[in-house]
Amino acid sequence: MFEAAEVGRKLEKDVYKSQVPILRAELLDAQQQLLNAPFPVIVLFAGVDAAGKSETASLLNEWMDPHWIVTRGYTDPSSEELERPRLWRYWRDLPPKGRIALFLSAWYSSPIRNRVARRITNPEFDMLLDEVAAFERALTDDGAIILKFWMHLGKAAQKRRFKAWEKDPLQRWRVGHDSWRHWRMFDKFVAAADRAIRRTSTEQAPWQIVEGEDERYRSVAVGTALRDAIRRGLARVPASHPKAPRKPARPGKGLGPALERLERDFNVLDRLDMTQRLDSARLDEALERQQGRLNLLQRKAQEKGISTILVFEGWDAAGKGGAIRRITGALDARDYQVIAISAPTDEEKARHYLWRFWRHLSRAGRITIFDRSWYGRVLVERVEGFAAEDEYRRGYGEINHFEEQLAFHGILIVKFWIHITKDEQLRRFRDRKRTEYKRWKITPEDWRNRNRWNDYTLAVNEMVARTSTRVAPWTLVEGNDKNFARIKVLKTLADRMEKRLKKS
Amino acid sequence: MFEAAEVGRKLEKDVYKSQVPILRAELLDAQQQLLNAPFPVIVLFAGVDAAGKSETASLLNEWMDPHWIVTRGYTDPSSEELERPRLWRYWRDLPPKGRIALFLSAWYSSPIRNRVARRITNPEFDMLLDEVAAFERALTDDGAIILKFWMHLGKAAQKRRFKAWEKDPLQRWRVGHDSWRHWRMFDKFVAAADRAIRRTSTEQAPWQIVEGEDERYRSVAVGTALRDAIRRGLARVPASHPKAPRKPARPGKGLGPALERLERDFNVLDRLDMTQRLDSARLDEALERQQGRLNLLQRKAQEKGISTILVFEGWDAAGKGGAIRRITGALDARDYQVIAISAPTDEEKARHYLWRFWRHLSRAGRITIFDRSWYGRVLVERVEGFAAEDEYRRGYGEINHFEEQLAFHGILIVKFWIHITKDEQLRRFRDRKRTEYKRWKITPEDWRNRNRWNDYTLAVNEMVARTSTRVAPWTLVEGNDKNFARIKVLKTLADRMEKRLKKS
Repeated sequence: MFEAAEVGRKLEKDVYKSQVPILRAELLDAQQQLLNAPFPVIVLFAGVDAAGKSETASLLNEWMDPHWIVTRGYTDPSSEELERPRLWRYWRDLPPKGRIALFLSAWYSSPIRNRVARRITNPEFDMLLDEVAAFERALTDDGAIILKFWMHLGKAAQKRRFKAWEKDPLQRWRVGHDSWRHWRMFDKFVAAADRAIRRTSTEQAPWQIVEGEDERYRSVAVGTALRDAIRRGLARVPASHPKAPRKPARPGKGLGPALERLERDFNVLDRLDMTQRLDSARLDEALERQQGRLNLLQRKAQEKGISTILVFEGWDAAGKGGAIRRITGALDARDYQVIAISAPTDEEKARHYLWRFWRHLSRAGRITIFDRSWYGRVLVERVEGFAAEDEYRRGYGEINHFEEQLAFHGILIVKFWIHITKDEQLRRFRDRKRTEYKRWKITPEDWRNRNRWNDYTLAVNEMVARTSTRVAPWTLVEGNDKNFARIKVLKTLADRMEKRLKKS
Repeated sequence: MFEAAEVGRKLEKDVYKSQVPILRAELLDAQQQLLNAPFPVIVLFAGVDAAGKSETASLLNEWMDPHWIVTRGYTDPSSEELERPRLWRYWRDLPPKGRIALFLSAWYSSPIRNRVARRITNPEFDMLLDEVAAFERALTDDGAIILKFWMHLGKAAQKRRFKAWEKDPLQRWRVGHDSWRHWRMFDKFVAAADRAIRRTSTEQAPWQIVEGEDERYRSVAVGTALRDAIRRGLARVPASHPKAPRKPARPGKGLGPALERLERDFNVLDRLDMTQRLDSARLDEALERQQGRLNLLQRKAQEKGISTILVFEGWDAAGKGGAIRRITGALDARDYQVIAISAPTDEEKARHYLWRFWRHLSRAGRITIFDRSWYGRVLVERVEGFAAEDEYRRGYGEINHFEEQLAFHGILIVKFWIHITKDEQLRRFRDRKRTEYKRWKITPEDWRNRNRWNDYTLAVNEMVARTSTRVAPWTLVEGNDKNFARIKVLKTLADRMEKRLKKS
């Protein structure tokens, strides 16, 4: 695979001198147009030492307007990074739409280094590569352009480069203490890279191998590829952008009416026994017992560094807030965070929809409670048509992959759908209108959502079908009786934590 | 000071039951109005164990709409937090305008705990408290409302509370292993708190001591104080908000014309010898020597965990970008970040103007290069009138305090003003218009700024006068000759790093 990048490509100086001003003008022009485009451009530099990764990134900063370029190089993760899933540090650096990011030693670096050092087996290596491919896939599906450059030098060429630098007193510093050590592992390194490139070169995020010996050649090769990629991305944007509001993607679309009715009639929510109640007389004792359990379990989890992520979804007025407060009431305020999801900020809107959830992942040993969550993608965004059908359909896989990464990192995920019947909701809405301090809770939107009860039912049913996984199962909570619901939530959480702690 | 909070205040149940619904409605109403107001509300809870800090924070979340409340409790700082100045973790959690933040165990916690444990002396304690007071002052000057509640219990009352909990099997978990240990240190704790409260109770951010024994009393006391503070803040907002664009605060305003002329004629920039040049023949050698030095120094700094922050300011076309690239060209891309400051995002606009710089502070051992910086406050914002006179005047002190915190944390700060003459700028503007790939660099704004040359000169002069401190001096760089300027920048940086490394 690399032979073709060890042939000694060179670009003549006069060609370079005459062509580069044109290329720079074109790159600048592309960058200017990109600023208003609905996608970011992510450029990865990987490859062998001395093949010009860092230099090329610097040069691109020089050729274009650096104000709109984010350049990031990664070293060993910090403790805060180690306390989160592996890809967290890259998620937090993702550029907004319209910008270019240059990433050095990014998400391929540690898998390849670990494989070269034989700290992981090939199957483990493949698993990491698949994780990376799914990550890239989520970004490109969202419109991002990803370019991956493997900057290459043959073993002999690398040696020549090091020797030349060592002889020059002004360049000697470029040969670091790792340089020769890496050089001796050249073959292993290239073998691992070969596997990585094969496994993650997709149509959407292809690798491009660039011969790095000649500075002029590699600079022009990378610059040209970047220019063309931006141009292709711009050409892809429909003229109608900013997109007109989409028509709601009616759930069940594509099913015949009979099948659709069947889906609606046989859904997971209707099978719940909504008559379940908890006697008020027993409430206080049950509450204190479960809260006491939860408090002790969380203290153990804190000691062991095991984090818990809670997801609360449910109908308007189902009692999510009340259930959450019964949990937080048992905890020290330093041990939890409640993240109430409302409209995204502009920094959030300018990125993949999962970005805003990644940024809220907590350090080890904490409980993070999402009051509404990433499931908005397949609930409200689906029903209201904010997400196109292909977007919310993709959402199931993206969400499962996200939760797998959390679970793989050791995080416990507990997801609740708090269910109430349509009649009970009406009763609560009316009650809220009557009570002064509850009036703020009820908005015209709540009534609108109520009219789409059937659509939401189908969406919930499909959400449970597709995202209730072994690592992150849904718990459906019968919520008509608030006391019953709150105790069920507390007890479920405590049971799951207990089980998780036993395993650790 | 605390005696008045050990008298056994109690609120009768029936009064509570009748008043709380009204208070909740008023709080909700205040919160709704706050949403559109140009300031945030920051509520701090400190005090003795079992006095209801965490419970009150939970209750406020219950009484109001939790979507617009940020609740944060702090434990020991992470390594990423330890690698930055002490207040960094609080800066990153500051709420945007219109929101309420509830902070537990926040910036008073570790100074008080350290003083109780005698890890710091009283003068050191006072220094930390002054730092905190300056921080709060910057926020309240910016419009924030800060409420600080000291939740109190007498020593005997605290003991009763613990004993009662210990007897109740359902409450026993509330008495943690630290509870009795803290109880025994009660007097020392209260003495330190007394000093902290005295020293940091300002008109803008007063402490309020709340007797915490009776849950009903303390809840209503805090809720009422919060309601009133929000209302007072809302009343303060001028009807004209959103504010009409301010008239430019002409620099030198208030000086008589003669004095103003004097300021302009005798300014630090005019004293520079702008004829200095570096022979092109000597450039390459000088460049490689300084870059080599810089590379070695940065590797040592990285090992020792010493960070460097570089600030580049200067006229349009002065050559900031070129100078920065000569620095980055000597570094590994993993060791530095260039932060180009352009228009703030909405998350940034919704907070104190320094917030966007705090968020970019890097981990230990890195170089962060600001291409334009917080000095925009006293340069462009002053000259263009984006900041009112009192705002930019306050800016000098806020900036000095910010840089002191960086320096105190061990960070090296190197600030450059790259100077060119007005004629040289004109020559460069014309050159840029002629060259295809430089054309993007020149905008109508550049020509507008040029017309305000004199105003900027006065602003630069005052900036240097007020912010060239011992911990963070300005270096003025004669930039008419680019080669000279680049080498001076590199050499200054290397010299400063060398000196800093010797001290460590």
